[in-house]
Amino acid sequence: MNRQWVLARRPVGQVGLGDFARTDAEIPVPDLLKGEILVRNRILGFDPAQRGWMDQGAGYMAPMALGEPVRGSACAEVIASQNPAYPVGSFVRGLFGWQDYAVVAKAGETAPISVPEGVQPEEALGVLGAASLTAWAGIKTVGRVKSGDCVLVSGAGGAVGSMVVQIARLNGARVIGIAGGAKKCRWLTQDYGTDAAIDYRTENVSARLAELAPEGIDLFFDNVGGDILEAAIAHMALHGRIVLCGSISSYNDEQPAPGPRNLSRMISYRLQMQGFILLDHLDQVPQASAELRNWLSAGQIRYRTDIQHGFDAIPATFLRLFTGANQGKQLLTIDT
Amino acid sequence: MNRQWVLARRPVGQVGLGDFARTDAEIPVPDLLKGEILVRNRILGFDPAQRGWMDQGAGYMAPMALGEPVRGSACAEVIASQNPAYPVGSFVRGLFGWQDYAVVAKAGETAPISVPEGVQPEEALGVLGAASLTAWAGIKTVGRVKSGDCVLVSGAGGAVGSMVVQIARLNGARVIGIAGGAKKCRWLTQDYGTDAAIDYRTENVSARLAELAPEGIDLFFDNVGGDILEAAIAHMALHGRIVLCGSISSYNDEQPAPGPRNLSRMISYRLQMQGFILLDHLDQVPQASAELRNWLSAGQIRYRTDIQHGFDAIPATFLRLFTGANQGKQLLTIDT
Repeated sequence: MNRQWVLARRPVGQVGLGDFARTDAEIPVPDLLKGEILVRNRILGFDPAQRGWMDQGAGYMAPMALGEPVRGSACAEVIASQNPAYPVGSFVRGLFGWQDYAVVAKAGETAPISVPEGVQPEEALGVLGAASLTAWAGIKTVGRVKSGDCVLVSGAGGAVGSMVVQIARLNGARVIGIAGGAKKCRWLTQDYGTDAAIDYRTENVSARLAELAPEGIDLFFDNVGGDILEAAIAHMALHGRIVLCGSISSYNDEQPAPGPRNLSRMISYRLQMQGFILLDHLDQVPQASAELRNWLSAGQIRYRTDIQHGFDAIPATFLRLFTGANQGKQLLTIDT
Repeated sequence: MNRQWVLARRPVGQVGLGDFARTDAEIPVPDLLKGEILVRNRILGFDPAQRGWMDQGAGYMAPMALGEPVRGSACAEVIASQNPAYPVGSFVRGLFGWQDYAVVAKAGETAPISVPEGVQPEEALGVLGAASLTAWAGIKTVGRVKSGDCVLVSGAGGAVGSMVVQIARLNGARVIGIAGGAKKCRWLTQDYGTDAAIDYRTENVSARLAELAPEGIDLFFDNVGGDILEAAIAHMALHGRIVLCGSISSYNDEQPAPGPRNLSRMISYRLQMQGFILLDHLDQVPQASAELRNWLSAGQIRYRTDIQHGFDAIPATFLRLFTGANQGKQLLTIDT
């Protein structure tokens, strides 16, 4: 059988276990069309953006269909192939969903990405995965980080944020990270090399920014939105840049929360705010991947994965993203 | 005597007549230092930004001093001069304040701008003044307007907005203006050549935008902020640009109002928001002035001024900006 977790209903407000249902489907018998492959998922990756795809009208991607396997990243083994680019036994990654098996590389769909030899599945979804590529494109191409910048990063303990702080540091910036809890703040200063860390759960973010960035923040990379965005706007330097990558604070809001009260500071300080998603920067993936692998092999970046186990634990593992329980990039290995 | 209106106290919330006081000072006897000039104000110009300068910590300019003449634009005649660049009898403009006489061109201060021969004082502060230059730089340099763009402008009946809609149209854009009241909306479509006008006082802005811009807004030039900004964000096209020039809806707020609830759409639609002020674009003033004068003499732009009269009426004339009573660029001629 092909075990599946499907979207049972669209979450209203806070996503919960009841929004998902376990079903069993037939294993897609390899009656593959030319170009298609059958893959068996080995490891799943979880991302806050999946919450957005569960809503109607998310914007840049069709919403997930009800009753279908939840859309999500996986690294999988090719077990049948009608495509010479994806030989049996090789590994691929893509949005293969919360299930054991999938037929992918279908005509008109996004092609799976081959995982190079020597790259482990958890690296393919982790340190070399979409979150790291997002961090790279966001801080370099969109944020135009440069030596001497004072860079602030929210969600700095997460999969994107922890890479952003390190890439900013490697580009000569002074880096302040915001994260939840003493442990993540310790990672920031001890492992990821940030100059300072702010624990938003126990500290007054605005007061700390006044101390840590008295000359203002040149570049703010935001994964969180909400009150933290408001606090950052209040401490931006003249001509500062704000890169909006995510707003996890609001993904589970039933009613949209009010935005920052201080947007008029965008004018008096001539600030720029730019939203982005990786989709617009796919041409940079080869360069970004190469640079990430170089840094990794030179020991210049650190990376944390939080690997849970077992097919039954998939929905609960997803929910860890929204409580901040995940200790690094959230992955799950599928038991066979 | 040198009549003056001074800032008597910092306005709390809505600015009112009681925030100003009439005083008489000595006429500055022309004991001028080398380089200085004595000017006599003939006409004053009013701008919403003056409200911000009355608060502590406005950002890009020192706050107005209590007990001093209110800072504001004027066009004035040079009546004594220790500076060959400003001969007696010529006209200059600058921030000469709410008073009859001022000594300006002091060392270390911003130099007054000479008014060319043939340009009337009301043109110098009006169609060729700072609001028009702001419109030019904002829609061209910051907004990068281009042919075929769907451009939305708020505060489109005002001094900046009415020029923005016309410059956008002259650059080949399709233009939608938002203004308050049927009369201003009629100006927009009949005089300024906008393709459509929305009366925010009687119409649902978001519903009208859905009708008028079904493919989305490419470029939004915002003078207003608040609910109108939120409505515009909801209807921006993919990769749309938002130019923040003003937020008159909030200038008199005692407590800052919540910002737009839909900022996360900045990410899914990859929007850019850029605050700006003219100060950063002074190098473009010669080019902008030349282009504005060409358009004006070719009859390609229309301009409205609302000219009030009399020194005693200065504070009440300023307040007209915040009720929308002004019928075009707000000016006042000083009785002598």
